[in-house]
Amino acid sequence: MAEAVSRTTRRVLVINPVGVDPWEESDTKYLRGLARRGTTIDVIHLDGGPDSLESAVNEAQAIPRILRRVVEKGTGYDGVLINCFMDPGVTAAREYLDIPVAGPAESGMNLANMLGSRFSILSVLKSLGPRHRTHARVLGLSERLASVVDLGIPVLDLQKNSDRTVEVAVNRARLAIERDGAEVIVLGCTGLAALAEAIRKRLEVPVVEPLAAALKVLESTIDLGLTHSRAGLYRRPDPRKIHGYGLPLKGARG
Amino acid sequence: MAEAVSRTTRRVLVINPVGVDPWEESDTKYLRGLARRGTTIDVIHLDGGPDSLESAVNEAQAIPRILRRVVEKGTGYDGVLINCFMDPGVTAAREYLDIPVAGPAESGMNLANMLGSRFSILSVLKSLGPRHRTHARVLGLSERLASVVDLGIPVLDLQKNSDRTVEVAVNRARLAIERDGAEVIVLGCTGLAALAEAIRKRLEVPVVEPLAAALKVLESTIDLGLTHSRAGLYRRPDPRKIHGYGLPLKGARG
Amino acid sequence: MAEAVSRTTRRVLVINPVGVDPWEESDTKYLRGLARRGTTIDVIHLDGGPDSLESAVNEAQAIPRILRRVVEKGTGYDGVLINCFMDPGVTAAREYLDIPVAGPAESGMNLANMLGSRFSILSVLKSLGPRHRTHARVLGLSERLASVVDLGIPVLDLQKNSDRTVEVAVNRARLAIERDGAEVIVLGCTGLAALAEAIRKRLEVPVVEPLAAALKVLESTIDLGLTHSRAGLYRRPDPRKIHGYGLPLKGARG
Amino acid sequence: MAEAVSRTTRRVLVINPVGVDPWEESDTKYLRGLARRGTTIDVIHLDGGPDSLESAVNEAQAIPRILRRVVEKGTGYDGVLINCFMDPGVTAAREYLDIPVAGPAESGMNLANMLGSRFSILSVLKSLGPRHRTHARVLGLSERLASVVDLGIPVLDLQKNSDRTVEVAVNRARLAIERDGAEVIVLGCTGLAALAEAIRKRLEVPVVEPLAAALKVLESTIDLGLTHSRAGLYRRPDPRKIHGYGLPLKGARG
Amino acid sequence: MAEAVSRTTRRVLVINPVGVDPWEESDTKYLRGLARRGTTIDVIHLDGGPDSLESAVNEAQAIPRILRRVVEKGTGYDGVLINCFMDPGVTAAREYLDIPVAGPAESGMNLANMLGSRFSILSVLKSLGPRHRTHARVLGLSERLASVVDLGIPVLDLQKNSDRTVEVAVNRARLAIERDGAEVIVLGCTGLAALAEAIRKRLEVPVVEPLAAALKVLESTIDLGLTHSRAGLYRRPDPRKIHGYGLPLKGARG
Amino acid sequence: MAEAVSRTTRRVLVINPVGVDPWEESDTKYLRGLARRGTTIDVIHLDGGPDSLESAVNEAQAIPRILRRVVEKGTGYDGVLINCFMDPGVTAAREYLDIPVAGPAESGMNLANMLGSRFSILSVLKSLGPRHRTHARVLGLSERLASVVDLGIPVLDLQKNSDRTVEVAVNRARLAIERDGAEVIVLGCTGLAALAEAIRKRLEVPVVEPLAAALKVLESTIDLGLTHSRAGLYRRPDPRKIHGYGLPLKGARG
Repeated sequence: MAEAVSRTTRRVLVINPVGVDPWEESDTKYLRGLARRGTTIDVIHLDGGPDSLESAVNEAQAIPRILRRVVEKGTGYDGVLINCFMDPGVTAAREYLDIPVAGPAESGMNLANMLGSRFSILSVLKSLGPRHRTHARVLGLSERLASVVDLGIPVLDLQKNSDRTVEVAVNRARLAIERDGAEVIVLGCTGLAALAEAIRKRLEVPVVEPLAAALKVLESTIDLGLTHSRAGLYRRPDPRKIHGYGLPLKGARG
Repeated sequence: MAEAVSRTTRRVLVINPVGVDPWEESDTKYLRGLARRGTTIDVIHLDGGPDSLESAVNEAQAIPRILRRVVEKGTGYDGVLINCFMDPGVTAAREYLDIPVAGPAESGMNLANMLGSRFSILSVLKSLGPRHRTHARVLGLSERLASVVDLGIPVLDLQKNSDRTVEVAVNRARLAIERDGAEVIVLGCTGLAALAEAIRKRLEVPVVEPLAAALKVLESTIDLGLTHSRAGLYRRPDPRKIHGYGLPLKGARG
Repeated sequence: MAEAVSRTTRRVLVINPVGVDPWEESDTKYLRGLARRGTTIDVIHLDGGPDSLESAVNEAQAIPRILRRVVEKGTGYDGVLINCFMDPGVTAAREYLDIPVAGPAESGMNLANMLGSRFSILSVLKSLGPRHRTHARVLGLSERLASVVDLGIPVLDLQKNSDRTVEVAVNRARLAIERDGAEVIVLGCTGLAALAEAIRKRLEVPVVEPLAAALKVLESTIDLGLTHSRAGLYRRPDPRKIHGYGLPLKGARG
Repeated sequence: MAEAVSRTTRRVLVINPVGVDPWEESDTKYLRGLARRGTTIDVIHLDGGPDSLESAVNEAQAIPRILRRVVEKGTGYDGVLINCFMDPGVTAAREYLDIPVAGPAESGMNLANMLGSRFSILSVLKSLGPRHRTHARVLGLSERLASVVDLGIPVLDLQKNSDRTVEVAVNRARLAIERDGAEVIVLGCTGLAALAEAIRKRLEVPVVEPLAAALKVLESTIDLGLTHSRAGLYRRPDPRKIHGYGLPLKGARG
Repeated sequence: MAEAVSRTTRRVLVINPVGVDPWEESDTKYLRGLARRGTTIDVIHLDGGPDSLESAVNEAQAIPRILRRVVEKGTGYDGVLINCFMDPGVTAAREYLDIPVAGPAESGMNLANMLGSRFSILSVLKSLGPRHRTHARVLGLSERLASVVDLGIPVLDLQKNSDRTVEVAVNRARLAIERDGAEVIVLGCTGLAALAEAIRKRLEVPVVEPLAAALKVLESTIDLGLTHSRAGLYRRPDPRKIHGYGLPLKGARG
Repeated sequence: MAEAVSRTTRRVLVINPVGVDPWEESDTKYLRGLARRGTTIDVIHLDGGPDSLESAVNEAQAIPRILRRVVEKGTGYDGVLINCFMDPGVTAAREYLDIPVAGPAESGMNLANMLGSRFSILSVLKSLGPRHRTHARVLGLSERLASVVDLGIPVLDLQKNSDRTVEVAVNRARLAIERDGAEVIVLGCTGLAALAEAIRKRLEVPVVEPLAAALKVLESTIDLGLTHSRAGLYRRPDPRKIHGYGLPLKGARG
């Protein structure tokens, strides 16, 4: 069983799916603090694209640029993390790449699913509630989603008044716990990462910070030598079908 | 009740989400044949983009170009139809536009849901099965989906040997009917529109051709003066958040 | 593809499933206003039967009379619409007839399913809530039903004080939108058709009036040459098994 | 706790929902054999109506006549059993009556649900499969229904060649057990009651005969002093709304 | 059909899964009052074990002792009832025994499922809510569970102030009925049996007392000659695999 | 954000829930090979108990002994892994402990849920299929479970003829992939760990070995400073209620 040996190094590429990136430095520091020994972290952002992702229009702007980054920069990494709770481009990147790709929403919801019998998502905007709810349904987790509650604060304003953001987050989380029966809270935006500890300290239930969850899922998947299945949803596209769009079909490793 | 009067004219923009479009003429003829009196049809394709949509990578290539077409060409229309069974960009276009946007998969599955207690989707490629299955789940229709069966023929080859395509389609549909209990067949690619009648003639269950279904849903929605809700999934994005990407936020009507 | 031509005329029979019918004239006017060019509408009521349908007992009284109307009057029509949100006799009429049969609840819920990610039903009486909820479950739409809220006004009283009915409807709809996350409202009684516009004007989400939805579904189905499947739930009964009850087995067309 | 004393007598009215009834004598004997001491059984049939129930058209013919029997004959009984696996008129009879009403399908499926983790229904005709499947969904039991398999033998032919019927039933049940994972078989027609033992002897899983199940559920409900809830689906109709149809609103007891 | 004769005697063993048992006498009296003629009831408790079952830790303490009681005392009985709403050891006892084993939660929920379209469970402690909710999901009844509400009174305190317990129970049940749409209330602890009538008198919906429900399910199953399926979840374990733990594999009858 | 620093050491206690343990040495080696730097692994077995877990009776034998091990040995560890795909005692251990507790089935299914849109479980025995299926339902993952297929080889025989076990496993997995649409295979017994690589090499889809998955979930949870929620299913029991059973209520850390 020589195969069953955990890797000792893991090179992780983190793509912040925004054109201008005020979080790049803090995210790098945050993720390096959370990474295991042997995990190296590079955080990059897009060449253009939205300032934040709060709609399907934003997502459409970001995804081709995410894929371009994957093509340009993916070589030499062991895993890719797309740093946004909408999990933008995760499916497309998995089609393209032969290395694991982690999304914060998928990782955070599955991790939360192991910490209690029902979880709630703390969305930044009410308008994203149906989106998160639909995502949970796609992942088969509808019955374990107690509710989606929202802060009512846009992504770019989350850190403008951190104390207030934390206050609102705690109040909304308590509503989910008491009214909806949530046993676990999943933060619904990776822009809340810097405030996660402050929120966690004031709540008595586990608070899943999805960026951290995605890093751990990615490290685990790399350790186990696993990658997404090619037999279904993430089937490798016919290379002739994606020729000519700046997206030559080759894995980042090769 | 002066309001409850059906419109007498409806201007429909059909976007074929491909860069080179061998179907433009035949689709125009097909849709004009199916349209009611008073419905006008314009079919356009993208400025670049994939030849056909068979993956999330293709979809990512197409969606921004679909949105660009919506911005450039949408003014003056009463409804938009995005002509592909992946319903690419339907969510984003609904965020952007104040007029109805129809997708063939959504329209075809809801129509099929009214013709029998379970339907099956006839996918072109096996790799698209999980995608269609997931789409049905998002629409809340999982329990009514009997199965997804596939032709094993890529989109661009569907009409190369029409007789064989029809033969395979009929055989796979029969499997869905007999083995899986399907009462209705939904064609899983709008590229099958030209063959729908030939397939229908050889089967004893309703065959829903999704491009036609989308046209009828669109005409109906226009007649009723209805548009998608702004209260949830299709909330209008903050205009400041989508500035600068060639996508100014104004409805096609304005 | 000569087949793919929309019909230019459609003869629609609307059956009001009540014995005394104060709505016949207004429904005729309403539906003719909504119909496309080429659609003719005849509204008839039953020979006896309940004044309104608010229970399974009422439904049992109405269904055989609905079927008798289908037998007596169905010949020469292209489609039948049974005008009640309980969809009474729709299944039985589909067994009997070879032309499309539309029900307002089925049509309204499937249409609402395309306008937002969750809808609520505005029931007339609280006692009908479980019935509508069960209907949504049968149609596979449970996960898309946000809630059922009720007016607490019997069918025959809906128009006695129209202003109050509209006021209550708007208030209850707002509760569904704000508390339950409804993005679309489906009116739960076709007796509300005359008030639909007044309700719609005061709400910011789409309001689906199910009688109008059923007409559009029926026109669409006729246009597409589709009818309900005979391969399952609506299988044609053995003629010997329904002989002798005033229900000879022949389609309305023949 | 004087109340918690089981009744010592129970008068049960069994309504065979058919116009001509070859089963009346054998059903009486069968049910009396199964009844507890203290339970009296009267089996009656309808004044007219279908020979057997195999469609929604048949059901529409039968239900008003079932209700008429309830009105004419229900007084003095402690419970009513409607003897058909379609559970025809069970909902309407519950609205009308203040005593328990049992249906074989509902009783048989809930009993089966306690004998194993998944059950299959052995339908007489393939055409009834979607109906039984829908019924299971209404009862919330979809996830526990392994499959519906069918005999392909009409109700009136079941006993024409009993040996063959048993043979076919055993073969189809084995398919459900081996292919679909059924742990329990529910006979899908009360016309199979006479053959239940012969089928049971040849299978190694529990075989639920639904007529017997309904009798036991009815006896149990009577013993416990329970009746269906009036707070929702079975709410008592407004007596003014069902006046004039031969269905005066009073409970069978009063 | 000599087989289809109901048994005239039924010997039922009731196991109270606690080490010290203040309920033994009152339960015996209660169950004998509810039993049919011909049913004999013996109530026993464990040799050690928890005082009450309110956690998975308690359950783990109880189950091996329950199985030991089954081995020591089960011979000569026709059915076993494990008297706790957690249904502790029901699955294991079914593996071991060839006679029916009833659990109050399973019996109570399936019975409630036949009395209305949705039921709520009245749990003793909030901490047991997720447990009951999970149990309903396992039984396939999630869609029929309106809610779980709780008394906030530990099992051993239920009868300390009976009037207050009844008062709280009635208030919480009303919340379930009015807010959550419950049509039936299932008491979530068999320790409430003595108060069931007092609660029932003050509510207008059916109140299912699960210990009584389990007795009736057990009597019914014995009458019908049915036992749990051996083809799946309750498959008989390999006797060599359970040797040596005080649990010789033989049915209680043999 | 000093808190957001990953731990550098993690002490993991692995409990093999069997009385005689032929796997202790190989599991220790296997897990140490997979562990990250900084993770220490101790594998212990029970003081008595079953040879393998293949039934609820076995589980009942094992759980109290697992809890005893938790009490005796848990102090000083950062996490506990219970090494069996039945996840025996995971719920009870979580009630008792303040450190994370991982189960292979829960971990393996959630990990598989991130590698493809549907997974199948490769059970050792057919009799365990309903158990695994029920477990998936409890975790909310029913819709993502394609099927359960089985080897038909008891746990203790898995390694008797390793080549044959691998051969059967590969054949059954292929059936799940081709017939049932599985995109990922989850091995349904941790006794297959030693054969996982051999199976993986012959399949083209990801194979999740659940013991390894549980280790990675445990390491991740420890790194993130998370533990199961106390607000619901895993609420801390009242210490007075578990006194006197050798299970004093204190966390392993304290």
